[in-house]
Amino acid sequence: MKAAVLHAYDEKLSSDTFVHYEDVPDPKIEKATDVIVRIGGAGVCRTDLHVVEGIWRSKVDVTLPYIMGHENAGWVEEVGSAVTGFKVGDPVICHPLVTSGHCLACRRGDDMHATDSKFPGINTNGGYAQYLLTGERSLIKLPKSLAPKDVAPYTDAGLTAYRAAKKASRHLLPGQYVVVIGAGGLGHIGIQVLAALCAAEIIVVDRAETGLALAKECGAHHLVRADGGEVDSVMALTGGRGAEAVIDFVGEGDAVAKGLAMTANGGFYYIVGYGGKIDLPTIDMITSEKTIVGNLVGTYPELVELMALADRGLVHLATKEYRLRDANEALHDLHHGRIRGRAVLIP
Amino acid sequence: MKAAVLHAYDEKLSSDTFVHYEDVPDPKIEKATDVIVRIGGAGVCRTDLHVVEGIWRSKVDVTLPYIMGHENAGWVEEVGSAVTGFKVGDPVICHPLVTSGHCLACRRGDDMHATDSKFPGINTNGGYAQYLLTGERSLIKLPKSLAPKDVAPYTDAGLTAYRAAKKASRHLLPGQYVVVIGAGGLGHIGIQVLAALCAAEIIVVDRAETGLALAKECGAHHLVRADGGEVDSVMALTGGRGAEAVIDFVGEGDAVAKGLAMTANGGFYYIVGYGGKIDLPTIDMITSEKTIVGNLVGTYPELVELMALADRGLVHLATKEYRLRDANEALHDLHHGRIRGRAVLIP
Amino acid sequence: MKAAVLHAYDEKLSSDTFVHYEDVPDPKIEKATDVIVRIGGAGVCRTDLHVVEGIWRSKVDVTLPYIMGHENAGWVEEVGSAVTGFKVGDPVICHPLVTSGHCLACRRGDDMHATDSKFPGINTNGGYAQYLLTGERSLIKLPKSLAPKDVAPYTDAGLTAYRAAKKASRHLLPGQYVVVIGAGGLGHIGIQVLAALCAAEIIVVDRAETGLALAKECGAHHLVRADGGEVDSVMALTGGRGAEAVIDFVGEGDAVAKGLAMTANGGFYYIVGYGGKIDLPTIDMITSEKTIVGNLVGTYPELVELMALADRGLVHLATKEYRLRDANEALHDLHHGRIRGRAVLIP
Amino acid sequence: MKAAVLHAYDEKLSSDTFVHYEDVPDPKIEKATDVIVRIGGAGVCRTDLHVVEGIWRSKVDVTLPYIMGHENAGWVEEVGSAVTGFKVGDPVICHPLVTSGHCLACRRGDDMHATDSKFPGINTNGGYAQYLLTGERSLIKLPKSLAPKDVAPYTDAGLTAYRAAKKASRHLLPGQYVVVIGAGGLGHIGIQVLAALCAAEIIVVDRAETGLALAKECGAHHLVRADGGEVDSVMALTGGRGAEAVIDFVGEGDAVAKGLAMTANGGFYYIVGYGGKIDLPTIDMITSEKTIVGNLVGTYPELVELMALADRGLVHLATKEYRLRDANEALHDLHHGRIRGRAVLIP
Repeated sequence: MKAAVLHAYDEKLSSDTFVHYEDVPDPKIEKATDVIVRIGGAGVCRTDLHVVEGIWRSKVDVTLPYIMGHENAGWVEEVGSAVTGFKVGDPVICHPLVTSGHCLACRRGDDMHATDSKFPGINTNGGYAQYLLTGERSLIKLPKSLAPKDVAPYTDAGLTAYRAAKKASRHLLPGQYVVVIGAGGLGHIGIQVLAALCAAEIIVVDRAETGLALAKECGAHHLVRADGGEVDSVMALTGGRGAEAVIDFVGEGDAVAKGLAMTANGGFYYIVGYGGKIDLPTIDMITSEKTIVGNLVGTYPELVELMALADRGLVHLATKEYRLRDANEALHDLHHGRIRGRAVLIP
Repeated sequence: MKAAVLHAYDEKLSSDTFVHYEDVPDPKIEKATDVIVRIGGAGVCRTDLHVVEGIWRSKVDVTLPYIMGHENAGWVEEVGSAVTGFKVGDPVICHPLVTSGHCLACRRGDDMHATDSKFPGINTNGGYAQYLLTGERSLIKLPKSLAPKDVAPYTDAGLTAYRAAKKASRHLLPGQYVVVIGAGGLGHIGIQVLAALCAAEIIVVDRAETGLALAKECGAHHLVRADGGEVDSVMALTGGRGAEAVIDFVGEGDAVAKGLAMTANGGFYYIVGYGGKIDLPTIDMITSEKTIVGNLVGTYPELVELMALADRGLVHLATKEYRLRDANEALHDLHHGRIRGRAVLIP
Repeated sequence: MKAAVLHAYDEKLSSDTFVHYEDVPDPKIEKATDVIVRIGGAGVCRTDLHVVEGIWRSKVDVTLPYIMGHENAGWVEEVGSAVTGFKVGDPVICHPLVTSGHCLACRRGDDMHATDSKFPGINTNGGYAQYLLTGERSLIKLPKSLAPKDVAPYTDAGLTAYRAAKKASRHLLPGQYVVVIGAGGLGHIGIQVLAALCAAEIIVVDRAETGLALAKECGAHHLVRADGGEVDSVMALTGGRGAEAVIDFVGEGDAVAKGLAMTANGGFYYIVGYGGKIDLPTIDMITSEKTIVGNLVGTYPELVELMALADRGLVHLATKEYRLRDANEALHDLHHGRIRGRAVLIP
Repeated sequence: MKAAVLHAYDEKLSSDTFVHYEDVPDPKIEKATDVIVRIGGAGVCRTDLHVVEGIWRSKVDVTLPYIMGHENAGWVEEVGSAVTGFKVGDPVICHPLVTSGHCLACRRGDDMHATDSKFPGINTNGGYAQYLLTGERSLIKLPKSLAPKDVAPYTDAGLTAYRAAKKASRHLLPGQYVVVIGAGGLGHIGIQVLAALCAAEIIVVDRAETGLALAKECGAHHLVRADGGEVDSVMALTGGRGAEAVIDFVGEGDAVAKGLAMTANGGFYYIVGYGGKIDLPTIDMITSEKTIVGNLVGTYPELVELMALADRGLVHLATKEYRLRDANEALHDLHHGRIRGRAVLIP
């Protein structure tokens, strides 16, 4: 099959060619619960750039060359002998983790903390390809309203944004405020999820007018340009208290310090984006009683929930399509901020 | 009345005399809801040392000279015209905040986040004195089993430890682990509260053998000497996962980084002690999905709950008594680690 | 002042004249925290009919004659000496309970379970009058967008519906269902609150087409006529599982048994309306693991939250205005199902 | 193999011979994930009496003859081809449900609400036998401290009591009260779990002195003889408020009405036992804002948690051993209240 393969890290992202479009062997069914999916679309994620940079080398065990792509949807191509819930041709979206379901985390509903899992596109071959090897437990059948290429980025960008926004929605009350920092691939979904799941007023902070325009379409109530005065702006909007929840989809540069400064006493700062540092005196956590919440991708049931929102039109994904052979173009466009919403590679 | 008064900050804590024992005017009833309490005992807190150092100058609005002492208990001496729930002579313990009860935080049960409050001993005169001005809403009547001088430190040291331990107990399950860092004035209460409120196994980390011995008396299941290898020790005890909750009563030096390292993926790091910094890459919060929880003193109902534990003998406070005139000795003993449990000043 | 006074119970609601419009003494400030409100509007509630029937005689301690009316809003007319947060002329809405704020329930944010409270219109004189005696702690200042007569029914009908809907919204997930039984004075608000606070699909069951039409305006996704087959209809809509939450605003006749039957295994049946009985074998609770939740009026902070929704236009109250002198007409119209939304008496 | 087989229902439990000890075919591995367990002990449950009475006929689909016994532990005898986590000879305890783990309930951690499950001993052959057919997902490996015959009743009696007690422990605070009605096979475990998981004061109500004596050993703080005045006794113990939680392990006769009457306003009544009825006016649920919670057996992770408590000696099971051939004697002893704790059948 054809795939876009990563052969070498590029710490400064200075090369024109991050991945090579080439022929590789087809994946094969190995276990009775395995499934091979024909890719309909694979989302392009900032994490893929971080993988190219080599940031993930110390976090996961993977050797080059391998195939990136952890946001996948398509059609069932082949099933293992024990697979009973899916048949060839079924349109499916793939939860990013492949688990056995036996560990205590899975049993408690926290499958993204499974002790025995694979993460295609991160620590094994992913979906920048024609076919993907995954497992039955990872699949969700798509309703007719949703085409694979249009929903692929929900599996990670969408699901991560959904999980963080859902956590915040559990404590946000009418009359309270939530700040979303960054209205990009994840942020623009987070805004829509917040609008669907709670009645807090949504303030969006972004550096770019295009981001703010997208935020407005997504349901933001207040737009703040990140021009240096964003903390003051949020304080003014919230009567000086700050926001009861801040969801930071940037997580680098001064976003972290500013995000924490915008958080009300007793409030929650959700960190989703990464690349930067959290750096503050412990006394500031004591006197303010703030909470800093790390956020991973969501669970399988949360992806089902997100699909329910998408099916009802409550969440819409802004995508830009590229041919798989043009993966490098997509990665560079993402790197240089030229994508509104999310890039999707189509084999 | 007599009081131990702070006249000047001492950033290096190098002086022999932090406070001066001298005559000051008696406090007076000002509002109909005011109450004057004759002090039975006033706890000596590490925060008092931090006040002397001037660390709190930027956090609160107070001018010297003033009287420290935010852990107070005694007997009602005089009540304002609107006070109906207490009469002269009642033995009482004082919640550290004085509030009107009108703001939304108080209405929601989060009175320690009140927008209109005073904090005697922090931002107004406290209990290193014969008498204290407080309010009716701050008082809890003591059962006969509890003498004011024996319980005074519950109001801040105890209440803060209780709140953090209670938060952790809400998610700790049998088969899981909780680490307590620091078995001092707060920590030794936190251990007892954990033992009363949940069935997780309690691991205590302390630099001193005396701390570990006190921890054992308090119900710790595993003792770890903080000699450099404490992260490895905790990992070994927890089967390599780390602890589902870590409560850090130290909050300075390498305790913070080590505390975070001991926390299991998906787990909670509760920061209570202060003086140091939190400093970590955002990616570490993402991949681990940890949560960092700031902790302030507890609410009035939480002090009632803690008194219920004390009344039933489920929590016991280790104290060392000093005469009020010997406040400097108590402060120095605390500074140099010579106190087991908590010092209490008795007028 | 003028008031509509209840002089005698009428168990069968057979009289033309439930209350008498007559002159009574003005209320007087008694305590320093008292406030007298000039009534702008007083809601007419099914509970008022139940009071007339004498159903509440065994529940509360009140002697006739007295003035009903527990849904009140207006303007501050006079304040006690200790009142600092309000001044004469302020437009206000009145939380239905008058509390001191000293008991543990109030301290924990559950003020509607206060151990020391009055409930004007239920156990002391209410707002079917020109003036009402209440307390400072019960008042919320109205934003300019909201007129007293238009919001008065929020204080009980709205607040009770809000509390039940908010409880349900805390566990309802996308892809799940909530049933609202009864789209009347409370139900039509409950529907709007659910639409604002969660993304579950809302099924409304009502006997009347006018109720279903109002439900649709309020945001219901599915309408079911209560014609005997409503359990089957809900089962069909929910894929045979039943609804994860059922909020029963009727609570009498067969609504209760049907409401429980519509509830999914592991789901929640919220009972708000009353007059009927819960009657089921304990084995049915065991095998289904359902939960039956009783619902009282909401707290003061919840009324603040509801006002935030109203101020932003997310909840709208359907009202029908009557002059105070026409209180009997309003009560009879309610009794005979002739009111869309809520009747309000205007002095 | 030998088994004690149910051939006919006996609605009045009037026969001497409920089950017949006889030869039946051995169970066979059918699916790749199947496991056959050699029974070390099978608990005898009041539900078995209810099965004999025919109460469950309308609830589950089973045809006679079949083998009862849903509380099983033993050693792995044979494993299917896909089983990787267990090997022949492993000592195991069996979660009562056999599930595939694919439905949304399992994914969310609520496996006892699985849409595709079997319940050996209830709707398919159980463990009153030498061998049991179950599935890999149902097994928990036992630590060396625990022998199969000593822990078998934890799988249902213990697990159901654990789940109800755990739910209550999530909201019970120091200074509050919990009532346990019935200190039998389930109740005596519930008491120990409450003592381990929270610091509420435990009041136990039982008709028999032997039950109260067992309750005291298990950690009850207050004992109340169920002699007609138990509601008054509980009210007196709780200062007139009632208990914040009542766990009713009886669920028939007047236990239900009395249990509800003992529950504090805003409190929770947990129904575990069955056979009787819930019968109360809806108004009583409204004015009290009580919650009635149905309770099924716990989840697989909850059985792991319970085993952790047992392993640490925090919960101890009182058992009485019978040979499998004496199953009728065990059932009759249970029926006539002659068992302290729980009967266990040993092949």
